[in-house]
Amino acid sequence: MEKLILICNDDGIDAPGLEQLISFIKEIGKIVVVAPEAGMSGMSHAVTIKTPLRMNKIERNDGIERFTVNGTPVDCVKMAFDKVLERKPDIILGGINHGSNSSVNILYSGTMAIAIEGAMFNIPSIGFSSLSSDLNYDMSHYKPWVQKIIENTLENGMPDSTCLNVNFPKSEKIEGIKICHQSMGYWEDSFDDRLDTRQNPYYWLKGHFTLYDKPEKSDEYALDANFISIVPVKIDLTNYNYLTELSKQYESE
Amino acid sequence: MEKLILICNDDGIDAPGLEQLISFIKEIGKIVVVAPEAGMSGMSHAVTIKTPLRMNKIERNDGIERFTVNGTPVDCVKMAFDKVLERKPDIILGGINHGSNSSVNILYSGTMAIAIEGAMFNIPSIGFSSLSSDLNYDMSHYKPWVQKIIENTLENGMPDSTCLNVNFPKSEKIEGIKICHQSMGYWEDSFDDRLDTRQNPYYWLKGHFTLYDKPEKSDEYALDANFISIVPVKIDLTNYNYLTELSKQYESE
Repeated sequence: MEKLILICNDDGIDAPGLEQLISFIKEIGKIVVVAPEAGMSGMSHAVTIKTPLRMNKIERNDGIERFTVNGTPVDCVKMAFDKVLERKPDIILGGINHGSNSSVNILYSGTMAIAIEGAMFNIPSIGFSSLSSDLNYDMSHYKPWVQKIIENTLENGMPDSTCLNVNFPKSEKIEGIKICHQSMGYWEDSFDDRLDTRQNPYYWLKGHFTLYDKPEKSDEYALDANFISIVPVKIDLTNYNYLTELSKQYESE
Repeated sequence: MEKLILICNDDGIDAPGLEQLISFIKEIGKIVVVAPEAGMSGMSHAVTIKTPLRMNKIERNDGIERFTVNGTPVDCVKMAFDKVLERKPDIILGGINHGSNSSVNILYSGTMAIAIEGAMFNIPSIGFSSLSSDLNYDMSHYKPWVQKIIENTLENGMPDSTCLNVNFPKSEKIEGIKICHQSMGYWEDSFDDRLDTRQNPYYWLKGHFTLYDKPEKSDEYALDANFISIVPVKIDLTNYNYLTELSKQYESE
């Protein structure tokens, strides 16, 4: 049976990274796109609860079904399941995101939320991101790598409750693929203090990302060395190493 | 030095669960509240990038500093760090949320995003949630348990990159505390198809939560047995058990 491929993203239906991803994998299966009508960066795993959603079909006469939703990336996955697709897809792809989702950025990322939502249903799911935030960045050299990762995933599947976080390095010359663990860091955010035209204060987020370190097997290390980083991500967030110690603190009484 | 306690939530500044949490721990330290001005359920780890934020100070003459932000729960934490607090807090609390954040609901939860944001800075952080979604639910019997968990955390600290997901059972009679792992499930969502007054279609999310199973050490099992579940949560999402297998697939060539 033909493979059914669901593509969503968080940069919105008009993002070039979405069309580049489509162009790389047109031959692999039937593609259905459900994407936010506007950019939704930084929306993480948010879902729209308090307002209704609208959906529109986009006609581009290229054989790809495209729909827009006025909601978040995860809304798009849920709408695809309930209103668009006749069956669950064989694979779910997020991206290609314009900007890094390495390290703890996975937690803010709508692209990775798409893959995480797929992992809840044990559907093999991959979030693709480029370290370039430039919307005009030519990703065509990603093509053989994207094909390889998707074909490998379709062939080998994935463990339950797991998805992949794939990031492409800044360099045009890609050295290969490294399987990595997530590196740890944080956004030391600050806010610009501004005054509106009525002299009332408002604040605009600006951030500076800081890594705690960059171990040799981490995604940031691989990306610095011009490798594609693949982090297998699991959606069970339990810190199993801490269970015993914590149990001693609470259950010994 | 007096303990500095930052409280945020996702149900908004007027949520009763927030005031109940404050009332339980007034004696433990200096409390500063930064909360969304409106309810922000289901916002996960979203941050506000495209629009500016406003902040207001709320006066209630009870010795507690309260601020509202017109943004997400994580925006509140970031604003607290940059614009409200003179130093990083000793502990960050989210809640008490009106509704469960057990199992994979942690991934949708603004309450737990508060704790996860704290964990990025290695500040001991706890998300508290009640299985009752009723805003009028009297949580006063939670008091000794909340105090115990916070005092224990202030005394023992927490491993780096870790926070706690605490859920209270439905029963008024709490049997005790169980340290648990996250149970696995998914929202089998569907959308109500409706027509607006101009006969244009719109969709409203409704969900049905399904557990894959309920192992004896899981949070859902403990909550069913009227225990408080505490899941230690880590923000490194790497599936370490899959690294070797995945490396064989990609790096052996």
